Amino acid sequence: MNLLLFTDGDRSGPAEITVSDQRLQHLRQVHRAAVGDSVRVGEIDGLMGEGRIVSLDSQRATITFQLDSPPPAKLPVTLLVALPRPKMLRRILRSAAEFGVEQLVLFNSYRVEKSFWQTPVLAEDTMRDYLLQGLEQARDTIVPAVTLERRFKPFVEDRLPALLAERRGLLAHPLPGASAAPTDTDTPLLLAIGPEGGFIPYEVDMLQAAGLETVSLGPRILRVENAVTALLGRLLPVD
Amino acid sequence: MNLLLFTDGDRSGPAEITVSDQRLQHLRQVHRAAVGDSVRVGEIDGLMGEGRIVSLDSQRATITFQLDSPPPAKLPVTLLVALPRPKMLRRILRSAAEFGVEQLVLFNSYRVEKSFWQTPVLAEDTMRDYLLQGLEQARDTIVPAVTLERRFKPFVEDRLPALLAERRGLLAHPLPGASAAPTDTDTPLLLAIGPEGGFIPYEVDMLQAAGLETVSLGPRILRVENAVTALLGRLLPVD
Repeated sequence: MNLLLFTDGDRSGPAEITVSDQRLQHLRQVHRAAVGDSVRVGEIDGLMGEGRIVSLDSQRATITFQLDSPPPAKLPVTLLVALPRPKMLRRILRSAAEFGVEQLVLFNSYRVEKSFWQTPVLAEDTMRDYLLQGLEQARDTIVPAVTLERRFKPFVEDRLPALLAERRGLLAHPLPGASAAPTDTDTPLLLAIGPEGGFIPYEVDMLQAAGLETVSLGPRILRVENAVTALLGRLLPVD
Repeated sequence: MNLLLFTDGDRSGPAEITVSDQRLQHLRQVHRAAVGDSVRVGEIDGLMGEGRIVSLDSQRATITFQLDSPPPAKLPVTLLVALPRPKMLRRILRSAAEFGVEQLVLFNSYRVEKSFWQTPVLAEDTMRDYLLQGLEQARDTIVPAVTLERRFKPFVEDRLPALLAERRGLLAHPLPGASAAPTDTDTPLLLAIGPEGGFIPYEVDMLQAAGLETVSLGPRILRVENAVTALLGRLLPVD
């Protein structure tokens, strides 16, 4: 936890929060924090700044703070990922928030197992917990939007065109003639990544017809989570 | 498993293998394979090719094959990672093999917990299992070399210089003035990545004195495993 995130509900004063949940445990057990220590804090969907622990016991911690810095810029990326198995979904939620993706769309595809849609990870509160873990890691406060698309065809035909407005659409799929996955970050992108086993030809055709260009990450077949972080890593604003 | 890897010990004929371990389970349960099916096979540290299942029951599968294609080129990268906690170590071993890293060095650093060096994951056979999982995923046969360096100072002073011969050495560490993490793949690289919490200043000084330049992945603090795959993703030979 590189940033302690809070909401209005945590406020015990205009510039003070009191926490008693897993954030308290983390302060005590991982940071081995003490009264007087400083800690980076951020208001969810707001500013970040420096906090100071003014009281701390086994029941609660009270932290005063001054918020003065904006969160880092988001990557101008809408990420589309075919719903992965739950273990991988948790990591992709965290990573999407960590790399600063603006929006994540989890969609159905022929090779997505039906049971994946039943996982409790998809509960709104649970997804939010994983997204917050990514924000805490990367020191960001803006929660990415997550959308679930349980039917491929209506999604691609009816809602994908609006997502593609003002964005270059890319499909990570190793077709002959695919161009290199990009490394610039100036162009807003929509990046689509298939399931383990890949998209079926019908899906590739539909996504291409919607305007997505195929791009390649080279000859190696990467695990879905590694394709996600490799693609996003290429786009990080490093200068 | 996108590639069934085998060794000489699996051969039941000059161009035939018989397997009865978890590879058999995977063929039956995941691939739902049947006699006559084709399957990609590769000899560890050798060539790859097409195999055909000639017999299959609950006890064993026999596969005939023709090996005709070399594995994909390795990334010209020696990856140095401060030993992470075991869960992350498993993923980093898999990912290093998957992205095609030539050599992985796991080294000690001030912020590496001593208990991490006790994990059974570091047993040679166990590490090899995770490396093979990465090779099976990416369709590669060449097992990366893994070296353990349990003491930082002797490693940096005595053995790092030889690793750096003919390589550009980079230290992923967010110092002011760090240049962008590279995206070219022509230059052989040595990439050093610190522990959770980062290198301490003494370590940064020593690594810089050994000739490593600091590079940055931008303002976000990435989890170690994501820093690894982001850095390697930037280097993938996509053209």
